[in-house]
Amino acid sequence: MADELTLRPIGVVRNELRRGVSAPRARAPRSVIELRPELAEGLDGLAPGQDLVIVFAFHQSAGPAPLRQHRQGDPQEPLLGVFSLRSPHRPNPLGLTTVRVLEVEGNRLVVAGLDAYDGTPVLDIKPYVAWLDAPQAAQEE
Amino acid sequence: MADELTLRPIGVVRNELRRGVSAPRARAPRSVIELRPELAEGLDGLAPGQDLVIVFAFHQSAGPAPLRQHRQGDPQEPLLGVFSLRSPHRPNPLGLTTVRVLEVEGNRLVVAGLDAYDGTPVLDIKPYVAWLDAPQAAQEE
Repeated sequence: MADELTLRPIGVVRNELRRGVSAPRARAPRSVIELRPELAEGLDGLAPGQDLVIVFAFHQSAGPAPLRQHRQGDPQEPLLGVFSLRSPHRPNPLGLTTVRVLEVEGNRLVVAGLDAYDGTPVLDIKPYVAWLDAPQAAQEE
Repeated sequence: MADELTLRPIGVVRNELRRGVSAPRARAPRSVIELRPELAEGLDGLAPGQDLVIVFAFHQSAGPAPLRQHRQGDPQEPLLGVFSLRSPHRPNPLGLTTVRVLEVEGNRLVVAGLDAYDGTPVLDIKPYVAWLDAPQAAQEE
């Protein structure tokens, strides 16, 4: 098995979503991703309207990540394997959302639809590419 | 800015794709993801035909990750910011592909369509969820 991998966040989320205040599964209509200033050049070529996949850390979900969990923590739901769920409590606390670019300015990327709380560390930004990211049935269409 | 994040792979890819031998951007018709045995229970609930997003490490892409790169390393292509490209050479070497489940048995998950070389460390497995993963235009449909 391969070694550990250490990642350094490329930036941080700034938006209105607060843990315990905002509705669960809320998506911010507008989030600013503030990149580390030295990475701003990496945004070259991004434009409003483009779809991106944001990879972030579930930084407020430290603690146990049971291998079987109830969906949304609801005890009425059956227990399922964590890899069947989008729970933030995972062996590696990585989150993903496909968002839409609203603005790009310097080291600030403004996006619509991110479901990450204010202060969330951002690990990667990727262009959405249907041949990699769409379900296979759609890729074959 | 948040601290570093250290991840431990949950498993490894076994397939026919070899760096420098297989065609670039190839997708394996069949890959076995061998999970660490103690994580097998996390696969409960996965079934053939399901779409998953696999998060993996570009473990063979160590080295420099310039902020502007040519698409597919082709000098004929214009330089673009790394966050506009799916290049494996990134500030954080994370890769994503949406795949289809073929089989689940114990700690082995067999999938179709993964574009990762044999030996790739797997970091997370998530169910594909259209409201998070589809482009926003599709989510609104």
